[in-house]
Amino acid sequence: MANHTLLLLSQDNAEYKALLQQAYLPGLTILAPEQEADIQHALSKADILLGEPERLRAHLKNARALKWAQSTYAGVDALLSKGCRQDYQLTNIRGIFGPVISEYIFGHLFSLTRHLRHYKEQQRLHNWQPIPYQSIAGKTILIVGTGSIGQHIAHTAQHFGMTVLGISRSGREAAGFDHTYQIPALNNVLSKADVVVSVLPSTPQTRGLFDAARIEHFKPGAIFFNVGRGDVIDESALIQALRHGNMGAAVLDVFATEPLPTASPLWDMPNVVITPHNSGYSFPEQIVTRFSRNYLKYINHKPMEGLVDFNLGY
Amino acid sequence: MANHTLLLLSQDNAEYKALLQQAYLPGLTILAPEQEADIQHALSKADILLGEPERLRAHLKNARALKWAQSTYAGVDALLSKGCRQDYQLTNIRGIFGPVISEYIFGHLFSLTRHLRHYKEQQRLHNWQPIPYQSIAGKTILIVGTGSIGQHIAHTAQHFGMTVLGISRSGREAAGFDHTYQIPALNNVLSKADVVVSVLPSTPQTRGLFDAARIEHFKPGAIFFNVGRGDVIDESALIQALRHGNMGAAVLDVFATEPLPTASPLWDMPNVVITPHNSGYSFPEQIVTRFSRNYLKYINHKPMEGLVDFNLGY
Repeated sequence: MANHTLLLLSQDNAEYKALLQQAYLPGLTILAPEQEADIQHALSKADILLGEPERLRAHLKNARALKWAQSTYAGVDALLSKGCRQDYQLTNIRGIFGPVISEYIFGHLFSLTRHLRHYKEQQRLHNWQPIPYQSIAGKTILIVGTGSIGQHIAHTAQHFGMTVLGISRSGREAAGFDHTYQIPALNNVLSKADVVVSVLPSTPQTRGLFDAARIEHFKPGAIFFNVGRGDVIDESALIQALRHGNMGAAVLDVFATEPLPTASPLWDMPNVVITPHNSGYSFPEQIVTRFSRNYLKYINHKPMEGLVDFNLGY
Repeated sequence: MANHTLLLLSQDNAEYKALLQQAYLPGLTILAPEQEADIQHALSKADILLGEPERLRAHLKNARALKWAQSTYAGVDALLSKGCRQDYQLTNIRGIFGPVISEYIFGHLFSLTRHLRHYKEQQRLHNWQPIPYQSIAGKTILIVGTGSIGQHIAHTAQHFGMTVLGISRSGREAAGFDHTYQIPALNNVLSKADVVVSVLPSTPQTRGLFDAARIEHFKPGAIFFNVGRGDVIDESALIQALRHGNMGAAVLDVFATEPLPTASPLWDMPNVVITPHNSGYSFPEQIVTRFSRNYLKYINHKPMEGLVDFNLGY
């Protein structure tokens, strides 16, 4: 059996090494050096890399034996920019974030619709005062991006009795969606949605998709979620819409610049909820399970899961 | 066609009157007097009452023509206490609270598991700091009460990948539950549950069910929800368990005394969330739909939906 060498380039190297050693993957040598010189030496031998996209990118040039890189994130835009080599197989971990991102969406959505912040304040004041609310059943959600994460959110929305609309490049039917449309229909569909969720990756086609003109098509009072990439929306226009326009609230996990600069007006806006890009945390156990399955395919020259199309950007 | 007279005894009389007039129920006269003398006069003629259990109870004695009372609540314990007459048909509105109570449970659950209060505080400080979390997938939820509300919560829990255990009087299988048990198994099952939800009504069998001895069987760190009735749990013992014991957190919508007295220690406990008994608000539209369906059965002498068994107490 041919031998393969995996170089770990993650912030959680120790955890990945322990988990991978227990996976007993045939013919695989696992390297997790700490010193820069050792990393450089390992780069000359490793045909496989595993890590966060930014770390992979930093070492891409010197990875002279590279054949395959497994990203620990779903979003791999850091590896797709101009000047980045594309002469290797890149796999992301799409398909495992759906459940936790769905928890995030509906936790924050119910927190808003059921007034959890108000009740916390009333509790502080020992104040017993019911606040009227509406069920999300019968409301309309628009999910922009109908891949695996979008589909999971769609199924949850259907469970709660929502009408589920989707936007995708192809407009093809997707599981969990009542109707799907292509991007040219976006403005029209936006005006019908009580809740809008963007799960879009950052690609040349999606960057700036939600610009000032498009944001005007949001239904008054709509709640906007961004769990994809921050640069799909014009942040200044978003701030204007939340301040003076019709948008009801925004729950934002991703931003044009991360961490969100401390001077951003978003922090202090009462109808904005900010979380630090962790709506879809990758649990190392899940990633190792995925990597292990992919490794067996890799050594047998079979198509791996989550293979990224460098042209499409996902 | 025989004529029937409905007397409205709700805090939302005007809304109910308007909705019911638009339902064009055959042979039905609708009364919604405001003056006490007019109410007393109406009570001598009305064969049907509609209202909140406490208001119905206050007028039960003088309702000389009473045949049927439609409660606008699911919980009708106010009408079941000793000395209350039971010579009429009482219907509650079980079956319509499931969706909104499920929203409440999972909104508050994700608020806890995904640290929404912490992120709100971090946002106030412009602090970008991811907090580790676990998915609820794979966790175990115990739902005490497997009726229509319990089943709806169970389906939602299954959707999110939880193992769903139930406790009921009969222990019969119920939709959405992986396993159901009878009450004698409660202590044993409690020790397995990461999340415990009581949807129990107040009956002679359920009052004080969660006493100090039973509360000791909770799994360390467990999250307890009460959306049924407050008197099924010993509040002093609950407070002790939350302060010094193993219970992780409690989300309480119902209490032994409501409104919760301002002197209750529960208000200021950091691991307690208090809401003012509105996890399952009854929307008048839904209640009128239910009442209308029941009215057509009533005049045709057919069994109505939500008929309460005075002996069982629900």
